[in-house]
Amino acid sequence: MTQKRILTGDRPTGKLHLGHYVGTLQNRVKLQYDYETYILIADAQALTDNFATPERLKANIREVMLDYLAVGLDPNRCCFVVQSMVPEIAELTILYMNLVTTARLERNPTVKDEIRHKGMDSTVTAGFLCYPVSQAADITIFGAHCVPVGADQAPMLEQTQEIVDRFNYLYGETLVRPEPLYSNYRRLIGIDGQAKMSKSLGNAIYLSDDAATVSRKVMNMFTDPNRIHGTEPGQIEDNPVFTYHDAFNPNQERVAQLKELYRHGGVTPEGKPILGDVQVKRELSTVLNQFLEPIREKRAKFEQEEDYIWDVLQKGTVRARIRAQEVMDGVRSAMKIRYFRLSS
Amino acid sequence: MTQKRILTGDRPTGKLHLGHYVGTLQNRVKLQYDYETYILIADAQALTDNFATPERLKANIREVMLDYLAVGLDPNRCCFVVQSMVPEIAELTILYMNLVTTARLERNPTVKDEIRHKGMDSTVTAGFLCYPVSQAADITIFGAHCVPVGADQAPMLEQTQEIVDRFNYLYGETLVRPEPLYSNYRRLIGIDGQAKMSKSLGNAIYLSDDAATVSRKVMNMFTDPNRIHGTEPGQIEDNPVFTYHDAFNPNQERVAQLKELYRHGGVTPEGKPILGDVQVKRELSTVLNQFLEPIREKRAKFEQEEDYIWDVLQKGTVRARIRAQEVMDGVRSAMKIRYFRLSS
Repeated sequence: MTQKRILTGDRPTGKLHLGHYVGTLQNRVKLQYDYETYILIADAQALTDNFATPERLKANIREVMLDYLAVGLDPNRCCFVVQSMVPEIAELTILYMNLVTTARLERNPTVKDEIRHKGMDSTVTAGFLCYPVSQAADITIFGAHCVPVGADQAPMLEQTQEIVDRFNYLYGETLVRPEPLYSNYRRLIGIDGQAKMSKSLGNAIYLSDDAATVSRKVMNMFTDPNRIHGTEPGQIEDNPVFTYHDAFNPNQERVAQLKELYRHGGVTPEGKPILGDVQVKRELSTVLNQFLEPIREKRAKFEQEEDYIWDVLQKGTVRARIRAQEVMDGVRSAMKIRYFRLSS
Repeated sequence: MTQKRILTGDRPTGKLHLGHYVGTLQNRVKLQYDYETYILIADAQALTDNFATPERLKANIREVMLDYLAVGLDPNRCCFVVQSMVPEIAELTILYMNLVTTARLERNPTVKDEIRHKGMDSTVTAGFLCYPVSQAADITIFGAHCVPVGADQAPMLEQTQEIVDRFNYLYGETLVRPEPLYSNYRRLIGIDGQAKMSKSLGNAIYLSDDAATVSRKVMNMFTDPNRIHGTEPGQIEDNPVFTYHDAFNPNQERVAQLKELYRHGGVTPEGKPILGDVQVKRELSTVLNQFLEPIREKRAKFEQEEDYIWDVLQKGTVRARIRAQEVMDGVRSAMKIRYFRLSS
């Protein structure tokens, strides 16, 4: 039985954090057993908003690969691909750009949000505007059947589906129409209580943070701002300390117990809090370090194997290009622009 | 002494006509002796406004190549390149798209004019908007030093120069900054007297028209609309019959004589016009057919050599890609995104 193909990936903007793990990485580690998995490191897309500092890209690609390998993504199961090293993606993007109006791109909610967020209305580059077109090429160049997405990424896939539909209508059934694969995606809040853990917000715990750093970050974590003393009743909801216990503590009985005590507050016969924030944090710190320790160990091992990292990426990219070339051949044939062979 | 490189080319929209000859072809035939000449058949750009009928492209590429060879462009001197078969152009376009804002593209006079001309304000495709970016990639991917242009094409080259300047500023001197090579470009008016000979206006004499077709078109040509009878004084200015005599008649003394007689009008002793429109046209017809006959002969010969046409294009494209890959290697190195080699 042949497996269906999925495409996932990340922009290489730096080390990955617990938010990435909860949101996508743990899901990918499972999916790699059931799907032919392409993991695209979207360096060309990282250039769109970071064009003046490309020297960071190589270092960031390395960090992302180390995180991938450390969490258990397996080069024998996944095809790791560097986007800018697949010229077929650029070729397909250029062809797709004729199928999409600029008006449609300006309506894309993701583009719209980002433009508003970054306040660059009048300085939007052509590359940024065409980002959804390039994503459509990323997905379809490998003939991906499914794309694991969170609910908020649906518009991105709709744009891709529109392009596929239009192409197939004009030139006959050629491209695979990708479907969303809704994962139990969860967005992890930041250690400062903000809705999203993110590098740019500076509220992240990285998969590569050492034990002391994790403990320090946990100790400084936001909890219930209304609980001045550990003897007062505390709130569990939107309290990152408990969100993280939910996500990472293997002993969920203990988590239930902690929540119960925290909600009630109260004092011991000695006049101390029954459950202070510090105690909850200490336990969380232990939990996170137990979770991260094997990841750190694997990461440290792979850090010693510099050549291996690039070898995995090189082999994955070469393998991915074989499929990409098949798809481009099909596209050229359908469009009747396959005039001659280019064997030099 | 190494020659400087030039890039020229056409969108393959069909057979070439006398307007192309006067405007660019005769100039190119001369330039090929002094410059390393790249002639780009811009099929991908022809797709931008013709995306739904790509099957015409192959036939049109063939017609353009036949015309090129027939007028004396020499495959031993020129590198004939099919744009869509050079993936490096697509790659470079995608990178450049991060250096140009959409606002800048919307201000490009050529884009603006075409949008107004074609009335497609709300349906402008991303591909059409980014057409000047793609042109910048066409020119710079071969490291062209000069681009033969008419005065009205200056804004197009300015956009390319801006991109080159920005790239070289960000990443260090990498790209060749192309300069305009102003040719004695002349725009040939149509046989209907409209300002421009053009396929879409249906007012063209094609390089491949047979003698009878040329004679018929000349006989139906627009002359001086105020000269009802051949005995009246006629106007030379904006009169295509005389414009064509100027452009193609090797006997310019006879042309001067014809003009003189035409301006004066008058009757012979037998009561006939001294110089009627028909006479001027008959002589023009002879002149054009004498000019076109060797071109038609060469064209007919090459039409018998179908394989040769595609062989020239294949070899030219392969040769051009060697240079394109050198330039892309330089671009990748400058941008520090040359992570590994892709030898599979």
